[in-house]
Amino acid sequence: MSPPFGLSLSKPSTERSEVPHSVRQSPSTSLRANGVMDYRADFPGIADWHYLDTAATAQKPQAVIDAIARAYGADYATVHRGVYSRSANMTLAYEAARRKVARFIGAKSDAEIVFVRGATEGINLVAQSWGGANLKAGDRILLSVLEHHSNIVPWQLIAEKTGAQIDVVPLTEDGKIDLDAMSAMITPAHKLVALAHVSNVLGSPLDVRRAAEIAHGVGAKILIDGCQAVPRLAVDVTALGCDFYVFSAHKLYGPTGIGVLWARQEILDAMPPYQGGGSMIDKVTFEKTTYAPAPTRFEAGTPHIVGVVGLAAAIDYVEAIGLDVIHAHECALVGQARDALHKLNSVRVFGPEDSCGILSFEIEGVHPHDAGTILDEEGVAIRAGHHCAQPLMRHLGVEATARASFGIYSDESDVAALVRGIERVRKIFG
Amino acid sequence: MSPPFGLSLSKPSTERSEVPHSVRQSPSTSLRANGVMDYRADFPGIADWHYLDTAATAQKPQAVIDAIARAYGADYATVHRGVYSRSANMTLAYEAARRKVARFIGAKSDAEIVFVRGATEGINLVAQSWGGANLKAGDRILLSVLEHHSNIVPWQLIAEKTGAQIDVVPLTEDGKIDLDAMSAMITPAHKLVALAHVSNVLGSPLDVRRAAEIAHGVGAKILIDGCQAVPRLAVDVTALGCDFYVFSAHKLYGPTGIGVLWARQEILDAMPPYQGGGSMIDKVTFEKTTYAPAPTRFEAGTPHIVGVVGLAAAIDYVEAIGLDVIHAHECALVGQARDALHKLNSVRVFGPEDSCGILSFEIEGVHPHDAGTILDEEGVAIRAGHHCAQPLMRHLGVEATARASFGIYSDESDVAALVRGIERVRKIFG
Repeated sequence: MSPPFGLSLSKPSTERSEVPHSVRQSPSTSLRANGVMDYRADFPGIADWHYLDTAATAQKPQAVIDAIARAYGADYATVHRGVYSRSANMTLAYEAARRKVARFIGAKSDAEIVFVRGATEGINLVAQSWGGANLKAGDRILLSVLEHHSNIVPWQLIAEKTGAQIDVVPLTEDGKIDLDAMSAMITPAHKLVALAHVSNVLGSPLDVRRAAEIAHGVGAKILIDGCQAVPRLAVDVTALGCDFYVFSAHKLYGPTGIGVLWARQEILDAMPPYQGGGSMIDKVTFEKTTYAPAPTRFEAGTPHIVGVVGLAAAIDYVEAIGLDVIHAHECALVGQARDALHKLNSVRVFGPEDSCGILSFEIEGVHPHDAGTILDEEGVAIRAGHHCAQPLMRHLGVEATARASFGIYSDESDVAALVRGIERVRKIFG
Repeated sequence: MSPPFGLSLSKPSTERSEVPHSVRQSPSTSLRANGVMDYRADFPGIADWHYLDTAATAQKPQAVIDAIARAYGADYATVHRGVYSRSANMTLAYEAARRKVARFIGAKSDAEIVFVRGATEGINLVAQSWGGANLKAGDRILLSVLEHHSNIVPWQLIAEKTGAQIDVVPLTEDGKIDLDAMSAMITPAHKLVALAHVSNVLGSPLDVRRAAEIAHGVGAKILIDGCQAVPRLAVDVTALGCDFYVFSAHKLYGPTGIGVLWARQEILDAMPPYQGGGSMIDKVTFEKTTYAPAPTRFEAGTPHIVGVVGLAAAIDYVEAIGLDVIHAHECALVGQARDALHKLNSVRVFGPEDSCGILSFEIEGVHPHDAGTILDEEGVAIRAGHHCAQPLMRHLGVEATARASFGIYSDESDVAALVRGIERVRKIFG
């Protein structure tokens, strides 16, 4: 089967950036023989493993694990409620983390930052709270073919409740969201646009600024799913001009169970509560309850305190390296992998040349799961499946793809191991 | 002001249990001079601190912190999706934790266990999913005066959406939910009853079995908020006969950001999805999405993997001691504290004689916050405030109370420090 938009086998990249050669003493002091900085030693989960599933979840640097252990140990206390000093200190750490997140993604104020369980909850919160208050029958929601299920199903749930309808932006030939098509199809009936900043399957980056201009041109709000972008690109939500932005900490080398919803202050302030409970209230009586201002209004119950502390440590870690360095490093590795896979017969590579750290492929005649299993025997961890993007799989004309994704700790040895592994797969399946 | 239901100053307890003298080699091997087992050494957050805010959040044993660090380190991988062996192992650990939780609370099957962010999310999930599907105008919801905001506000939010109305069960003189009154006021219009197993302010235990019989007598479902009960009492949801049960891991010596919703299988199976996203689907198309069976249907997105692993370690820890031992230990300490506070002039103690590990009080003429601040200087951490239970505060006729709450690591030195601290408060406020 060939994909409806004619995604072709990748060509060798000619313009890819080099693996950065900057020699840094921090966060890690280890240095590889070839002069390329090696961060592997910072990650106890890596050792000599070829971990190419960073787009599913990133391994954690020891600095993050240590911050988590301290926060559960000598520093542990609840936040916002205690009258004793350790709780006051933990509250300071929690709110300092909020300011750190705000600065990290270019928010205008920490009051624009809501801590959520993850990007999935962030999108559900916007869909139910903003969508529940603002969508009605006849309104339309605009998504794209490449969205993750977490940026499809929440909109289907609120569409069902409100009577709104969903339209889908197609992709360009090389697997990007087609903004010309978006521009042509959007109408004033579209109240909300929700798009991935970087595709979790193809690595395709989105020109968020242009997408936001198109959305705002008809008065629509735009939500950006930044799960794969925040670990790979410097993000400035104010400069990008979007209205909502979500990401998960566990993909940013941070803890599980914590993520961020950013929304423009005036939008957040006008949104009704999502979950009810402790902390998010102003005054409770059985007759009438009034709510705290945003972002507190959206953080019901005892928060994932240590998750927030761990997220702050993760931001410190990636900022010490620099997103520009990480991006260049991952682009170089994706370029190497594309070139190497292109040279192998019967390997089809999906996605654009400027993919951000993520490469999907299929080996002719081999189910991706079988490829994944054989690669595992070689110490190479890839993901095989629909990657929570079934509509994109149908678009590509496949049931599943194999996916290799890179991170800070990835290096040429991982690419080499991937190629060796695929060669073995091809031998076995003859 | 005197409380409307005439809560009186506590009398010295005559029937309280002794601090257990059983000598255990596990989990800790340290032993106090007086023969009482001392678990303090297991908790790096305790040291020589008099931590009496366990009802807000429990300190973590080193075993739990170590399990968390391992799960973020050499064992780290995503669950349910990976084709490589470490991900398969993490999935086994994740699902083994679900079985452990099921056994721990007496569920009939691990398919009855939904991992949520905490009790607050669990109640919101039931309110929105079950309540959204089953409540309508004219229906009534029954709560009690002593409920935590997390067991009030979610019901107000769904009542507002559906047109259902809320009724409130009063308390007995000693601060328990009055089941005779509940029996007299419940009608077939009541579709849902939601009550705390143990009050977070007064420690009052509920006879859940009788409450469930009363609810089921009119065909209502009953949800139990088990946040303060699960760390203090052996819980068997099947024997208790309730329909929903929720608790948070961080109050059970486990991680933040993770909790449990238990529901009877047939009820859970019939509930519509709450949040949409990855993992919770069967098949996604833009035209129609179908959902996975429970509990998967209710776990959208990458879960708090390490939170679940840490919760399992916490259950191992408390089970090695035994809930009966913990309960007896806390009852003994509450009894000692009640007696000691009763002997101090102008200290008013709230709540029943058989309070489970939690003691609220006020010092005449001293705002609880001021008391808390002075106690902090003495190395004693209590909580002062409305404890997310403003309706109960109004019932007690106070703005706030001071609250001391006990845990595994608490001992007589904490009671003595509390009493010394209160004496200092009284001197200062002379």
